Amino acid sequence: VLPGFEGAGVDPRTVRELRLEIEEFHTAYCETLDRGAVAEWPDYFTEDAVYRVTARENVEAGMPVGLVYAEGKGMLRDRAFAVANTEMFAPRYLQHFISGIRILSVAPGAIRAQTNYLLVQTLLDGPTTIHQAGRYYDVFVREAGRLLLKERQCVYDTLIIANDLVYPV
Amino acid sequence: VLPGFEGAGVDPRTVRELRLEIEEFHTAYCETLDRGAVAEWPDYFTEDAVYRVTARENVEAGMPVGLVYAEGKGMLRDRAFAVANTEMFAPRYLQHFISGIRILSVAPGAIRAQTNYLLVQTLLDGPTTIHQAGRYYDVFVREAGRLLLKERQCVYDTLIIANDLVYPV
Amino acid sequence: VLPGFEGAGVDPRTVRELRLEIEEFHTAYCETLDRGAVAEWPDYFTEDAVYRVTARENVEAGMPVGLVYAEGKGMLRDRAFAVANTEMFAPRYLQHFISGIRILSVAPGAIRAQTNYLLVQTLLDGPTTIHQAGRYYDVFVREAGRLLLKERQCVYDTLIIANDLVYPV
Repeated sequence: VLPGFEGAGVDPRTVRELRLEIEEFHTAYCETLDRGAVAEWPDYFTEDAVYRVTARENVEAGMPVGLVYAEGKGMLRDRAFAVANTEMFAPRYLQHFISGIRILSVAPGAIRAQTNYLLVQTLLDGPTTIHQAGRYYDVFVREAGRLLLKERQCVYDTLIIANDLVYPV
Repeated sequence: VLPGFEGAGVDPRTVRELRLEIEEFHTAYCETLDRGAVAEWPDYFTEDAVYRVTARENVEAGMPVGLVYAEGKGMLRDRAFAVANTEMFAPRYLQHFISGIRILSVAPGAIRAQTNYLLVQTLLDGPTTIHQAGRYYDVFVREAGRLLLKERQCVYDTLIIANDLVYPV
Repeated sequence: VLPGFEGAGVDPRTVRELRLEIEEFHTAYCETLDRGAVAEWPDYFTEDAVYRVTARENVEAGMPVGLVYAEGKGMLRDRAFAVANTEMFAPRYLQHFISGIRILSVAPGAIRAQTNYLLVQTLLDGPTTIHQAGRYYDVFVREAGRLLLKERQCVYDTLIIANDLVYPV
């Protein structure tokens, strides 16, 4: 378990509503990335958001510093721009599968949740393979009625090579 | 995005109800196929339904003609009969996984939705591998209170060989 | 279809509520296993629970005896203890993905349901691969407001080697 993401007692009715809403958030977020619309990706975050991608191995060793780290929407936009405008890797299709949304805690300013993701990839003219399996550890806030990510930590199980992390998860 | 399947503003409450109902539809549809009961497969479609399976590559090139095309329940029945009564490929188990149901538009006669599917396959005495990853682009209508497919377009990412398309997705 | 798990007519409203509740059950159950907390695993079962893991091939041949069979929470606890305290296999991460929850029947003392599971595994410093794909056939009972498994039969498609079954599914 990622520190700060221990489960607390949440009312079952609240859990139900929030997990369905967060499922809809994930669906929109993942569809944006799967469509390749990386320029729209920062819109799912707050202005002061933190985005991090870390190996589970590192988290368990108490070293939560990840291969990817962005703080603030400006950095996310820079990253999105760089990804959209460079050809750093072979063309491929990506598709996300989501399962196991857990609502961990609900406070006025922050909803903490955890979700399994499976990211499959297809290189052109190749088979589809598992690209990355991991968990999102998220802190959501509500702005103008809409959920936004104040924090997203992607903790992956898969051994990752640097190239694999060019594209947001 | 497949032409005709752009998202329109749909009321969140309607989205919630419909996506849960469509999830139940997918569950029944996929379970029928995973069980190998291909003769029951046409029952998920309207009399005038269109069923198509196309590579994402072709869709993006503006060539939506697919490897598989069936128009009308009669053609679906013929196809189901042919699949059920021929031994065209090695015995295998198939299993569907569904994620990311998006309700795109809701009109009196038609609900448009998009869903990610992952189809895994097990050849007897072999490992389980990804057979096909793709998206359903669906048009549902309600007949006698029950959702039916008036149109299902399966757009797959995976490089497909002709043999792989014998069995319905 | 596993004998005893034929679908019966269940009211759609009941189906909706139960499948969402069972999804939450699966999420908790799978997260416990994915976290490696195998000692907590028996807590998802009743005192007299039956747990079984069987190949689909055997079920279809009418031989439902599985590679793994445990009757009663005591046997589950013994098994959990053995798994937690031996190093029988190389370190690995496991992650469950769940799809297609079907409510089959609802009686005062028993809710029968079926669910697809995909279990992916990552050996340290290796890629993530499909470890096992299968279906849970479950009988749930409610004790003190909480769902518990009175019976879980895991029917897997994947060719399994004995080692793969050390850890609970």
